[in-house]
Amino acid sequence: MSEGTTGRGSLSLNQWTTRHWSLAEAVDGCVRHGLESIGLWREKVAEQGLAESVKLVRSAGLRVSSLCRGGFLTAGGLPGEEGRTAFARALEDNRRAIDEAAELAAACLVMVVGGLPGVRPGEALPTTGPAGGFTRDLAGARERVAEALAELAPYAGERGVKLALEPLHPIYCPDRAVLSTLAQALELSLAHPEEQVGVVVDTFHVWWDPRLFEDIARAGSRIAGYQVCDYLHPLPEDVLLGRGMMGDGVIDFRPITRAVQAAGYTGDVEVEIFNADIWAADPDEVVTTMKARYEDVVLPA
Amino acid sequence: MSEGTTGRGSLSLNQWTTRHWSLAEAVDGCVRHGLESIGLWREKVAEQGLAESVKLVRSAGLRVSSLCRGGFLTAGGLPGEEGRTAFARALEDNRRAIDEAAELAAACLVMVVGGLPGVRPGEALPTTGPAGGFTRDLAGARERVAEALAELAPYAGERGVKLALEPLHPIYCPDRAVLSTLAQALELSLAHPEEQVGVVVDTFHVWWDPRLFEDIARAGSRIAGYQVCDYLHPLPEDVLLGRGMMGDGVIDFRPITRAVQAAGYTGDVEVEIFNADIWAADPDEVVTTMKARYEDVVLPA
Repeated sequence: MSEGTTGRGSLSLNQWTTRHWSLAEAVDGCVRHGLESIGLWREKVAEQGLAESVKLVRSAGLRVSSLCRGGFLTAGGLPGEEGRTAFARALEDNRRAIDEAAELAAACLVMVVGGLPGVRPGEALPTTGPAGGFTRDLAGARERVAEALAELAPYAGERGVKLALEPLHPIYCPDRAVLSTLAQALELSLAHPEEQVGVVVDTFHVWWDPRLFEDIARAGSRIAGYQVCDYLHPLPEDVLLGRGMMGDGVIDFRPITRAVQAAGYTGDVEVEIFNADIWAADPDEVVTTMKARYEDVVLPA
Repeated sequence: MSEGTTGRGSLSLNQWTTRHWSLAEAVDGCVRHGLESIGLWREKVAEQGLAESVKLVRSAGLRVSSLCRGGFLTAGGLPGEEGRTAFARALEDNRRAIDEAAELAAACLVMVVGGLPGVRPGEALPTTGPAGGFTRDLAGARERVAEALAELAPYAGERGVKLALEPLHPIYCPDRAVLSTLAQALELSLAHPEEQVGVVVDTFHVWWDPRLFEDIARAGSRIAGYQVCDYLHPLPEDVLLGRGMMGDGVIDFRPITRAVQAAGYTGDVEVEIFNADIWAADPDEVVTTMKARYEDVVLPA
């Protein structure tokens, strides 16, 4: 249990929810709204500078519930030199992410493992071919993830960082994560010590899974993070922005929160929303709504 | 093994692929292109008339690889009288679908089980409330499906019709099917005799599933239908139309076809594509392309 939690986790603002705030503004916002924890993004940390970011969160007395994100480990599945170069570059970038997570004392580094080799997030499929193409070898892509983790887990372990494998909704399988279910993330994590590799439960991604409650129980102390946001219906044209404020979509949160708690998770509960309307709104109002909805629909009665 | 198949199934045109053809035109098209089998839709059968449809497919010597579709069994999860009425109406409509499948000697009646009670396909979420609302009770919706099947399976069995449970991609969980994985469909089927309830493997819906190959093997003789089409990326705004011609998306078909054959499936292989561009094209050209792609990317080398 982290210092300052109730043993049931406390609410954390993932800073992408208030995307237009700088890291300094998001830290101030957390303090102003009485939050004890924040989830950070590498882009925002880079803008603020790593040392300055560390200083800001420490002075504010905030915990860092996660750093988003490492991953994109599958490009090694491209043939020949292109694949080898991409794999080496991905490992190097992830080592930097681990270093940053260590500096920030983040509870975990969230890993979005990457999609089919050669398919870029949100972009049209490239022309298939040996150079500049993509591969449909899904099983192979999953093997690349396991290989990369074998390299990265000990590196993370030496720096006291936990890699948190995030299964993404199957809609993102082509371009963002060949890891689609909690069971699959859990199985992948088991090859490594628990302090090195865990899993993230993000309601948006897993709410539909018929094995969800069984797998949350099985995951137990491997649960390294719990993220909440709603699943909007219908999804907007850019499916990445289909995440909604809790209560605005189709998810029944309380049973999931209860299951995550029953599995032994005592960390923070992060709210991470990608949504054009929410980004356009006044961030202070967004945080006020977030706090109210957390009490109303996320926390068990 | 059906008469006239090679023991490896033969290519079947699901008539929604050539949506602008009437049933009579689709039957003619199959004959003209040398296809032995057709997948029918209830709407098209109704337009042509059931008796006339039966006559047309029989005179043409075509097998009916499936009738689409029964299902939408979850509305009984709405509270009170509204739920009871909806459940009774769904059962009645499904009995009519079973009668039609029997008349047409369809190899199976495809079942799209329905989404969250009160959420209409492709429409925005209704206001939550006791009347005219919807429910987020996903587990309850799944129980409603099991209850409805218990009513319908014996009725189907008496008429020699096999209900084929179709797991749909999780993107359709809110509004079309709370059945999201092959494992889940298979488990649901096991409560009933094999000749009454089976499962459909549709590549679009299950390609991403990390347990796919294991579950196809487990499904074995429960596999009542095999449908192929590609998964486009990115999906179009109306996600229902994200189905593409085989080879135009991200799916590696051959390993899946091989697994379905290895599981013992000897029925037809249906091509069912919902796609605005394909519907706008000349149906004869679509069928020609479909035959070529079936040989090139679907059938194992």
